[in-house]
Amino acid sequence: MRPALRIDGLQYANWSEKIFRQLREGGVDAIHVTISYHENFRETVLNFEKWNRWFEQFPDLIMKGLWASDIDKARETKRTAVFFGFQNPSPIEDDIGLVEIVHTLGARFMQLTYNNQSLLATGCYEAEDTGITRMGKQVIKEMNRVGLVVDMSHSADRSTIEAADLSERPIAITHANPHDWSPALRNKKDDVIRAVTSNGGMFGFSVYPHHLKDKSACTLQSFCEMIARTADRYGVQHLGIGTDLCQDQPDSIVEWMRVGRWTKEIDYGEGSKSAPGFPPMPSWFEDNRDFGNIEDGLRSVGMNEEEVAAVMGGNWYRFFDENFGAKSGS
Amino acid sequence: MRPALRIDGLQYANWSEKIFRQLREGGVDAIHVTISYHENFRETVLNFEKWNRWFEQFPDLIMKGLWASDIDKARETKRTAVFFGFQNPSPIEDDIGLVEIVHTLGARFMQLTYNNQSLLATGCYEAEDTGITRMGKQVIKEMNRVGLVVDMSHSADRSTIEAADLSERPIAITHANPHDWSPALRNKKDDVIRAVTSNGGMFGFSVYPHHLKDKSACTLQSFCEMIARTADRYGVQHLGIGTDLCQDQPDSIVEWMRVGRWTKEIDYGEGSKSAPGFPPMPSWFEDNRDFGNIEDGLRSVGMNEEEVAAVMGGNWYRFFDENFGAKSGS
Repeated sequence: MRPALRIDGLQYANWSEKIFRQLREGGVDAIHVTISYHENFRETVLNFEKWNRWFEQFPDLIMKGLWASDIDKARETKRTAVFFGFQNPSPIEDDIGLVEIVHTLGARFMQLTYNNQSLLATGCYEAEDTGITRMGKQVIKEMNRVGLVVDMSHSADRSTIEAADLSERPIAITHANPHDWSPALRNKKDDVIRAVTSNGGMFGFSVYPHHLKDKSACTLQSFCEMIARTADRYGVQHLGIGTDLCQDQPDSIVEWMRVGRWTKEIDYGEGSKSAPGFPPMPSWFEDNRDFGNIEDGLRSVGMNEEEVAAVMGGNWYRFFDENFGAKSGS
Repeated sequence: MRPALRIDGLQYANWSEKIFRQLREGGVDAIHVTISYHENFRETVLNFEKWNRWFEQFPDLIMKGLWASDIDKARETKRTAVFFGFQNPSPIEDDIGLVEIVHTLGARFMQLTYNNQSLLATGCYEAEDTGITRMGKQVIKEMNRVGLVVDMSHSADRSTIEAADLSERPIAITHANPHDWSPALRNKKDDVIRAVTSNGGMFGFSVYPHHLKDKSACTLQSFCEMIARTADRYGVQHLGIGTDLCQDQPDSIVEWMRVGRWTKEIDYGEGSKSAPGFPPMPSWFEDNRDFGNIEDGLRSVGMNEEEVAAVMGGNWYRFFDENFGAKSGS
């Protein structure tokens, strides 16, 4: 029997041949990688260019992912398909025409905000959440038309619920956990998860320690029990993994993620003055070779094979298949 | 019997629904349109965006052309496939990574120069021609790899011959005529046409009056006799049409083409102080509805049906089919 699909709904590693080989060792068929935090359009294009070089340099390990069918191709050729996304709408600047352009270049997910207010919606660190903006409504429609998925991982509650309702196609929270398991600001409350999943959307579970109960000390069992509970509550078909793995990144990168160019002062985001850097990963998920631990963990908390396969990749596959192409009839 | 393919190797019209309808009336299956003269990358992207809007607005008349197979699709659905190109390498700025990016966005031809020296080669208006530059050699290799065709329509002789020899894939002169028929600076001498065609490249005949014998007064017969003679000399399989039709453009545009932002002084290019604007088109080719005149003209100078079909579109089709995809094995 072929092993179940393994798809990771979000990573932002400091990419290298080492990590590409670990993806293969971990049997990872596809990953969604962030290529923009605060980059403008031209800077984002430089990041597409960087990946083009890696695809040219490592054709036996990775390939560009545009459609779900590329995951099949990657499996057949023992490679990992790499899909692109942005954690901020900065790549489209103030130009709705760039939505189709970045989709043509390969972008498949775009967060409407990072932590701050954007031109489109409100980020989860703002004091007030005014929901989807005028431009945001137009951009959601355009993203729906071309097949660029709305990702609300870092957005505030009202904005997320409005996006889930306004969007004519399912949206995603690619990387977060339920707030009632671990009450981090970035984790999602019941009504938010419900709005996303009840509209057909996806929720990806993060192993970034700031999103975990007991952070780096979180146990695999606690994480997997939380997944099983979430499946009972919202339906297993809406769940996937979105590790938020930031492997081998220097701490300067977490500062870039939090601060970008929007402030001259330091902002610790989910960290703190005493712990400003990347937190250590939990022992059971240090890199891409550890997906098997999560898979085994899900079995050990009582999920059946079909449910485990759905969470480990089957659901993301279906979601990619239905949401990356132009809207039918357009 | 299905009418022969009609493909135009270059146009730069002031696009409108009127012209899109004329393309259909003229039975034009595909056109290569210029979307950049002096635009930088970001400005070129705005031009891609403009076309995306037109494809959305006029889905019954036009469609984006990426591959030769799109021409078949256009014919089946009675539309015109629009392929993109640049008359200058300004869209890739000084960044070789942009070659693949613009190809992904849909660019299929790029001139290594307009009239001036570029980062890549020498334009036909420079006093000295130093051939392909260091960056030019790298860019030709990259264009070959991804399937972006080298177009030397506006380049100087030595640069063109070197490009034809250096390129591992056939190159094109999309729009010009033989110099010995009409000795315009932009028309091409025997050794230049020979270098391009003997390496498998294409030569597209222009009906832009400055490239015609007797300019706007040129007769259809003279034009078609010239084509027949060129076929005898270099082989009919290397020839196509590249009208250089600039329909409905205001004269400010021909000034932009010539002057861009590279000078504060006026440069008349192929025009003159007394005739600075676009010249009037010959009576037998005023717009896209007149391709039939050229087709009939070729027959009346003795070309057989197979030869006429090759020149009117068959050769461009084959060339598109062989040269727009990634190099095999890469």
